[in-house]
Amino acid sequence: MGQKIVIIGGVAAGPKAACHAKRLMPDAEITILDQDSLISYGGCGIPYYVSGDVNDEDELRKTSFHMTRDASFFENAKGVSVRTRTRALSINRKEKSVEVINLDTEEKDSVPYDKLVIATGSQPFVLPIPGADLEGVYTISDLHKAIAIKKGLARGEIGKAVVIGGGAIGLEMAEAFADLWGVETSVVEFMPQLLPRIVDAHFADMVKKHMKEAGVNIYTGEGAQSIEADESGKACRVVTPNRSLEADVVVMAAGVRPRSQLAQEAGLLVSPFGIVVNERLQTSDPDIYAAGDCIESINLVTGKKMLAPMGSLANREGRVLAANLAGIPKTFPGVVGSFIMKAFDCCIGATGISLETALAEGFDADAALTAPSDRAHFFPTETKIPLQLIFDRTTRRVLGVQGFGPMGDAVLARINPAAALIAKGGTIDDFSLMELAYAPPFSTAIDALNAAANVADNLAAGRQRNISIADFLAWTDNPSSQPNWVALDIRHPNEVGPFQEKFGSIWHTIPYNEIRRRHEEIPRDKTIIIICDAGTRSYEIQVFLDSIGISDTKDLGGGFNCISRLEVDWWPKK
Amino acid sequence: MGQKIVIIGGVAAGPKAACHAKRLMPDAEITILDQDSLISYGGCGIPYYVSGDVNDEDELRKTSFHMTRDASFFENAKGVSVRTRTRALSINRKEKSVEVINLDTEEKDSVPYDKLVIATGSQPFVLPIPGADLEGVYTISDLHKAIAIKKGLARGEIGKAVVIGGGAIGLEMAEAFADLWGVETSVVEFMPQLLPRIVDAHFADMVKKHMKEAGVNIYTGEGAQSIEADESGKACRVVTPNRSLEADVVVMAAGVRPRSQLAQEAGLLVSPFGIVVNERLQTSDPDIYAAGDCIESINLVTGKKMLAPMGSLANREGRVLAANLAGIPKTFPGVVGSFIMKAFDCCIGATGISLETALAEGFDADAALTAPSDRAHFFPTETKIPLQLIFDRTTRRVLGVQGFGPMGDAVLARINPAAALIAKGGTIDDFSLMELAYAPPFSTAIDALNAAANVADNLAAGRQRNISIADFLAWTDNPSSQPNWVALDIRHPNEVGPFQEKFGSIWHTIPYNEIRRRHEEIPRDKTIIIICDAGTRSYEIQVFLDSIGISDTKDLGGGFNCISRLEVDWWPKK
Repeated sequence: MGQKIVIIGGVAAGPKAACHAKRLMPDAEITILDQDSLISYGGCGIPYYVSGDVNDEDELRKTSFHMTRDASFFENAKGVSVRTRTRALSINRKEKSVEVINLDTEEKDSVPYDKLVIATGSQPFVLPIPGADLEGVYTISDLHKAIAIKKGLARGEIGKAVVIGGGAIGLEMAEAFADLWGVETSVVEFMPQLLPRIVDAHFADMVKKHMKEAGVNIYTGEGAQSIEADESGKACRVVTPNRSLEADVVVMAAGVRPRSQLAQEAGLLVSPFGIVVNERLQTSDPDIYAAGDCIESINLVTGKKMLAPMGSLANREGRVLAANLAGIPKTFPGVVGSFIMKAFDCCIGATGISLETALAEGFDADAALTAPSDRAHFFPTETKIPLQLIFDRTTRRVLGVQGFGPMGDAVLARINPAAALIAKGGTIDDFSLMELAYAPPFSTAIDALNAAANVADNLAAGRQRNISIADFLAWTDNPSSQPNWVALDIRHPNEVGPFQEKFGSIWHTIPYNEIRRRHEEIPRDKTIIIICDAGTRSYEIQVFLDSIGISDTKDLGGGFNCISRLEVDWWPKK
Repeated sequence: MGQKIVIIGGVAAGPKAACHAKRLMPDAEITILDQDSLISYGGCGIPYYVSGDVNDEDELRKTSFHMTRDASFFENAKGVSVRTRTRALSINRKEKSVEVINLDTEEKDSVPYDKLVIATGSQPFVLPIPGADLEGVYTISDLHKAIAIKKGLARGEIGKAVVIGGGAIGLEMAEAFADLWGVETSVVEFMPQLLPRIVDAHFADMVKKHMKEAGVNIYTGEGAQSIEADESGKACRVVTPNRSLEADVVVMAAGVRPRSQLAQEAGLLVSPFGIVVNERLQTSDPDIYAAGDCIESINLVTGKKMLAPMGSLANREGRVLAANLAGIPKTFPGVVGSFIMKAFDCCIGATGISLETALAEGFDADAALTAPSDRAHFFPTETKIPLQLIFDRTTRRVLGVQGFGPMGDAVLARINPAAALIAKGGTIDDFSLMELAYAPPFSTAIDALNAAANVADNLAAGRQRNISIADFLAWTDNPSSQPNWVALDIRHPNEVGPFQEKFGSIWHTIPYNEIRRRHEEIPRDKTIIIICDAGTRSYEIQVFLDSIGISDTKDLGGGFNCISRLEVDWWPKK
């Protein structure tokens, strides 16, 4: 027989590494150890199992050809041994063995290895608040908990749900409760926005508005302080500084932490972000590799270390790791942080870093916010998709892209190419010329992503000067907070009525195609905010006004197509 | 005033260059000349106008904010002058002027320039066959012809249509006739496949099968020899070597040629692919620029010169050209050839070059044909999308990608990132690690495009050895044509019955997960074709068989998920 490879962890990176390694080295003796009875499941599918989109938990453990990935499947089909309900207690690096215990029989055992792989994943972070350990409080960490929640739903025991945490898993779980089961669902997020650190606030707020309209209560900037129990000792209430929310079930989705204790106890180099590995996914012990949620990753945009817990990365890493086990020197250079999420009838996606992160990291960053059409404007299913491109003014490097659109693959079709080029250090010019495929049913002649890059080009060159969404909303919420400004609304006269009514004399209106002959109506002693639907015409007008000496102007990037997707008090009711 | 810029051509590159240049140089005096009365229209939308998806031709000339892009729009909104019905007769480079004629008044005039832009586009190639000039024979070259065809449809004068040419425009027109209008439609293509030089034959054949099922008659490998007239002199019949097709309308969609005569007569450097320009889109006269369908492009994969007539490229080039007019040194490095097309309920996309082209160009090329899921297999809308990645074995560079799927943006979401990386010289490893966004409603943990790259990696390393679709179909169409082979069908026993019935003793079957214990049933003196649904399990079995000394095996890449999308005589009827 060939070398003995032992893999600790049987969910994503572990099985991927095992199977690829077995194909590269058919004579290797490969064993996966996992403390759970269920292995190799699609953990990211849990919300869709809870929602009912996926009927049976078994579906999450099946291959695309409908075989269940259990121990006997790995044995028979893959030639890989699996020991379930087997917890790794410690690693003996000197003897090159893993000490294990069988959780059913409590028998202990020593499993020798030539090469060891640690793929222990992550564990949910449990907030240190009173009641966090009550019955009825669930983390979304394994299939067993998902099965328990779904049983409760099916039995009609859950009328109200509270989700603590407005990240991706929290929001997917909120949709699962609210959409098919009609559960009254609330999301509590400590940070002032949903999806913190993933997208910028205005994109998060588009998701918030949409989910609220779909019936989910969302409370941002409001942390859970405690979870209270009913007489039977079961969680029944989540308390925040502002309110008390009744709950038949509480989901704690407050992020994850790398499961790196075993590695640490074995003396391997471990950081707060996880097990430290080199580009070949080798730990500080050359005979021990690691992959998946438990490792420290490198962000390819910032160069900083980070935790990147994603099933897709775990799989890609597993394949690279296996190659290295087999002596093929592949590398995993790092992560850009691609993200996509369904939220009821909408979709939000991102890749790279947000503007907020970019500024915090010291980039000379700015954002081109746009609202282009996802396909030819004359095509029946056309929609506007707010799309933001974050860039560095000095280097012109693209740092990130965010998109919000209807449920479907239109946003994905822009996030994916952005991710590809951001990982390669792509610039504004690369994005402007990117040859995205074109036909009217799929895109516009200048694709949405090209158009966002062109706006970035204009901003970086100083030809375009925008007002941020935050400033615009502050100014319009309280027009006198900022002295001496007027709006110049260049849309069709039919569209401006409600705004003139609301804002009175500060709301000037001259249609886009009349400004060249009516520009003398524009006050020259005010800051002028130029407004259109998408932020494209307003830029053209800004350039024209510059050319005639009216230069104290700001465009509303993304225009009213973005503003209308946010919760804005003064927005006309339909 | 600033410099005088004259632009010949007012459809795509011309208006884009004009408007961007005006914004960069507000004092420039910019004039567009066009011989047509209608300008700045979405020519690629013509099939959707004819089909009825777009009601009014005016929609193709409107902006996304519903203004018609006519001469007065350019004048008022853009500050750009347009002279329609004005044909450029010649360029006087010494005097720096364009000699023009007004087609209505027949008045001649001389228009001086400081910088000239040639954006004369392309003209349809008219096959030199008898009857090509008959009434009722249309090219899809301008809106007027489209309006005439649609009038005929609306009046009920068109019951039968023949389209000559099975490229993108031909097929889009065929769908337009057949889908909404119920016209009996035939497509005649001289080459042995549809979409020649755009995709490989088996992808073209998926489109062919789907369009035939939707009711379009398709005759490939069969050129139109003549068009015959009825008594009134109107086209009524298209004759091929094999048949005679009645037609109330004939569309000639046999490709386009660059409209470069004016440039050539002015002594500018012109090749058969169009006007020769440098990376800054400057012709051999430094005061004359050119962009759009009329220029020679460079293919970024092959390095060869080519014609690349696409509205999307024309727009991107127009922007680069305008920057250079304004003294901003931007470059347009070349073209990868991204393509996407709707065909009834399906979609086909491609980028880079086909395997056929790659082999002809001398690459050490191979193709990884796969049929992965477009999203998590447990998600309700999941579909298999045949996806092919063409690569060079020696350099491991990715040369092209092709995809076929249901109508929607799933294929686009893989073609776009492929285009981004192919333009940058991306390798198999870049594609394998590309961080495509993942969530179950949008993708699989190992995205379809990553998976195709992993197959390419296996092929390039020699671990995987495939049989081509063409060979497989030849062998199965006539099993005795190839001596001494057997099929090893490793799918579920429920699936193999009809094939065993059809092929008898050459059709061996052992389920995938039983092969490790039943491999002694496999004949060792035959060539073994391993068959599954997607080509993934068959690869695993190939590796296993190699390890036990059975090495005369070939995988059916893409598996039956690809074969079932082709016209195959022996395929079981439903």
